[in-house]
Amino acid sequence: MSGFDYAARMDQARRELTGSDIDVLLVSVGSDLPYLTGYEAMPLERLTIAVVPREGDPVLVVPELEAPRVDRVPGVFTVQPWGETEDVIEIVAGLVGGAGKAMIGDQTWSVFLLELQRALPHTAFRSARPLTEALRVIKEPAEIELLRRAGASADVVAGLLAQHTFAGKAEAVVSREVSEMLEANGTDVAEFAIVASGPNGASPHHEPGERVIGEGDGIVIDFGGTVGGYGSDTTRNFHVGEPSARYMEVHEVVRAAQKAAIVTARPGVAAQDVDRAARRVITDSGYSEFFIHRTGHGIGLDTHEDPYIVEGNGQVLQPGMAFSIEPGVYLPGEFGVRIEDIVVCTENGVDRMNRSSRRIAVVG
Amino acid sequence: MSGFDYAARMDQARRELTGSDIDVLLVSVGSDLPYLTGYEAMPLERLTIAVVPREGDPVLVVPELEAPRVDRVPGVFTVQPWGETEDVIEIVAGLVGGAGKAMIGDQTWSVFLLELQRALPHTAFRSARPLTEALRVIKEPAEIELLRRAGASADVVAGLLAQHTFAGKAEAVVSREVSEMLEANGTDVAEFAIVASGPNGASPHHEPGERVIGEGDGIVIDFGGTVGGYGSDTTRNFHVGEPSARYMEVHEVVRAAQKAAIVTARPGVAAQDVDRAARRVITDSGYSEFFIHRTGHGIGLDTHEDPYIVEGNGQVLQPGMAFSIEPGVYLPGEFGVRIEDIVVCTENGVDRMNRSSRRIAVVG
Repeated sequence: MSGFDYAARMDQARRELTGSDIDVLLVSVGSDLPYLTGYEAMPLERLTIAVVPREGDPVLVVPELEAPRVDRVPGVFTVQPWGETEDVIEIVAGLVGGAGKAMIGDQTWSVFLLELQRALPHTAFRSARPLTEALRVIKEPAEIELLRRAGASADVVAGLLAQHTFAGKAEAVVSREVSEMLEANGTDVAEFAIVASGPNGASPHHEPGERVIGEGDGIVIDFGGTVGGYGSDTTRNFHVGEPSARYMEVHEVVRAAQKAAIVTARPGVAAQDVDRAARRVITDSGYSEFFIHRTGHGIGLDTHEDPYIVEGNGQVLQPGMAFSIEPGVYLPGEFGVRIEDIVVCTENGVDRMNRSSRRIAVVG
Repeated sequence: MSGFDYAARMDQARRELTGSDIDVLLVSVGSDLPYLTGYEAMPLERLTIAVVPREGDPVLVVPELEAPRVDRVPGVFTVQPWGETEDVIEIVAGLVGGAGKAMIGDQTWSVFLLELQRALPHTAFRSARPLTEALRVIKEPAEIELLRRAGASADVVAGLLAQHTFAGKAEAVVSREVSEMLEANGTDVAEFAIVASGPNGASPHHEPGERVIGEGDGIVIDFGGTVGGYGSDTTRNFHVGEPSARYMEVHEVVRAAQKAAIVTARPGVAAQDVDRAARRVITDSGYSEFFIHRTGHGIGLDTHEDPYIVEGNGQVLQPGMAFSIEPGVYLPGEFGVRIEDIVVCTENGVDRMNRSSRRIAVVG
C-alpha cells in the first residue's frame, strides 16, 4: 500500500466534489479509505472516518488508541484522535457542519449512519459509490502491476494443484493447503480458497467442509489473495480419475463461454455484453438455467468491486478496468464447473492476469 | 456453530419485538445473524438479510448462488433466494411492508440502509443493538464452554511463548508464529496476533511489521482466535533479556490494576466501576495519562461486543456476561505493557477463562 500518490487521489476526490452538489465525503471501513489515504480503518465498534469537505482540509477521525497506527501522509489529511469517553458522533457532526448533502462510504456500519442522521437532521446522505468508483475503477499502472503479481502467484498454485493429491482429504484440509501454497509462492495474504467437491461443486460459494474427496469427484477450486493489497481470484477444475463424458461436455461448454466473454471484452463494449457473450454459449448448449450468477466482478483493493459484468449494467468498459470472467454451470446433486480469470482492459482487448492451463486437471 | 437452540433464540427475539413498538428486525452481516439462525452472511456486495417480523415467519433473503450454503433450520426461518438481475431492495421492502419502525443490525452496510430508507420512506430505522444485545449479552452454558476452550488454547500458546525465541525476528514473523501456534493447539481459527516490540509497544493496536526484535525490547503480544465461533483474547508481556527497573515498575502497576478490576467485577457492579478500579491503581501510581483506553469489552461471537468496561457505562454486570479486563500503560517512544484476560461473571465474582502466568516472561 505504499508508493501511491495519495495527495493526487485526494485532490481528484475533491475535484469530483467540486463538480457536484455534494458538500462532504465521509469514508470509513472498506477500501475507499486506504485508496485515498493509505490507512485502513479497523472494522470494529470504535468509529474511524475520514471527513473530506469540498473545501478545507480532510480530517481523519480515529480512536486515540489507534492513532499511533496511522502513517501520516503530509498534505493529504490531518489526524483527529478521539478518546474513549468522547462522543465521536458529535466530533464528526461538528466537522460535517451545515452540509446539505453528504456522501458516505458503502461499507460504513449502519449504526454510525443512523447516529449521524440523528445528529445532522438537515443533511441528506447518499452512497459514496459514484464518486469513489470514478476514482478506483480505472487502475493506475502500479495497481495493474500488483494485480499481475497476485495473478502470477495464483497461477503458480494452479500449476502445483494439477500435480497435487486430493483423494482421501477433506475439503477444508485442501482449502488450508491452497492458502499455504499461495503464501509460499508470492501472495502476501491468502484471502479465500473455495474447495467444492463432488455435488458440493454445484454450490458456487461453497464453504469447504468435512466432505472427504474421493475417486470420481470433480473439484472446483476458487482461490485468491493479495499482493500489496491487490487481489487475485481464479478458478480451476480438477477431477479425481478420468471424468465422465458429461463432465467433460459441461467443462467444454464453460471453457467456450469463458473464451467468448474474453474475446468480447474491449473498450467501448458494455459490461452486460460480456455477460451476454458467455451466457449465449451456455444457453445454446442447453444449460442456461444452471448458470446462476453473473459473469464477473471488478477487482482491485476489493475482491468484488466495479465494474460488475452482469445483465443490466450498461457501463462501458475502458482501458484500465480490471475484472473477473467466470462463467459456470452448476448441476444440483451432481457437480459444478467454473473457469475464472482476471483480465485488465487494454486499448484493444484485455490483458490476462491468469495464464495457467484452463483444462481439466486429472488428479489423484 | 451447531448445537444451539436457534428456534428458542428466534422466539426470544420475537418476544422482544412483541414487548416493543418495533415492527420488524432486519439482520445482515455480523454476528447477530449467526446467533439467531446459525448462518453467517458473506460480507460482500450481494445483500443477505433476515427479515424478522413481530408477527409472521422470519425470512432469510439470500443471493441465489449462496442459497446452497444455508443450513436450513426447520421452524426458524424460510429461505428466499434472489437472482442476480433481481432488485433485492424491492424484495426486502415488500417483506417489511408497512412497518412504521424497523431495527437494523449495526454492521449492515450503509449502502443497503440508504436504499431501504429510500424504498421505505415511512419506516423509521434504528439500531438493533438494544434488542440483539439483550439476547447475546448473557451467555448460555454452551457458549461459556466454547469461551473456556478458546481461552485454554490461548493459555497453551502463552506458555509456549514464554519459552520462545524472539531476538532477530521481525514482529510480523512472530505474529505468524503465534497464529500457527493457536491453530496447532486447539483454536479453530486464529483471528489476530498483535506483536508490538520496543517503542511499538506504546501503540495498543500496533500492526506487526518489519521491526526486528532485539535485546532489551519489551514485547506486548495480544492474540486470540475462535473455537466454535467463540473467541479468546489475551495479552502477555515478554522481554528480551532482563527488564529495566522502570519496565518492571510499570508492569507491576498494570498487574495490580488488572487484579483490582478482576476482584471488583461481580453481579450488581456497574461496568464503569470495573474500569474505575483499574484506573485508580494506575492513576495512584502516576501513569493515568498513559492508560489511553477502556478497561475491557464483552466477547462472544464478536471479539468486541457488550458489555463495554468503560467510564460512562452504568450497565450492571450479571452472571453470564463475558468480557476482557485489560488495563495498559503506554509510554510513547519507550514501551508499553498490557495484561488481558477474559472473565465470565458468575453468581459471586468472575470465572477466569485465562490462567497463564501474568508475570513478565524473560525470553531470548
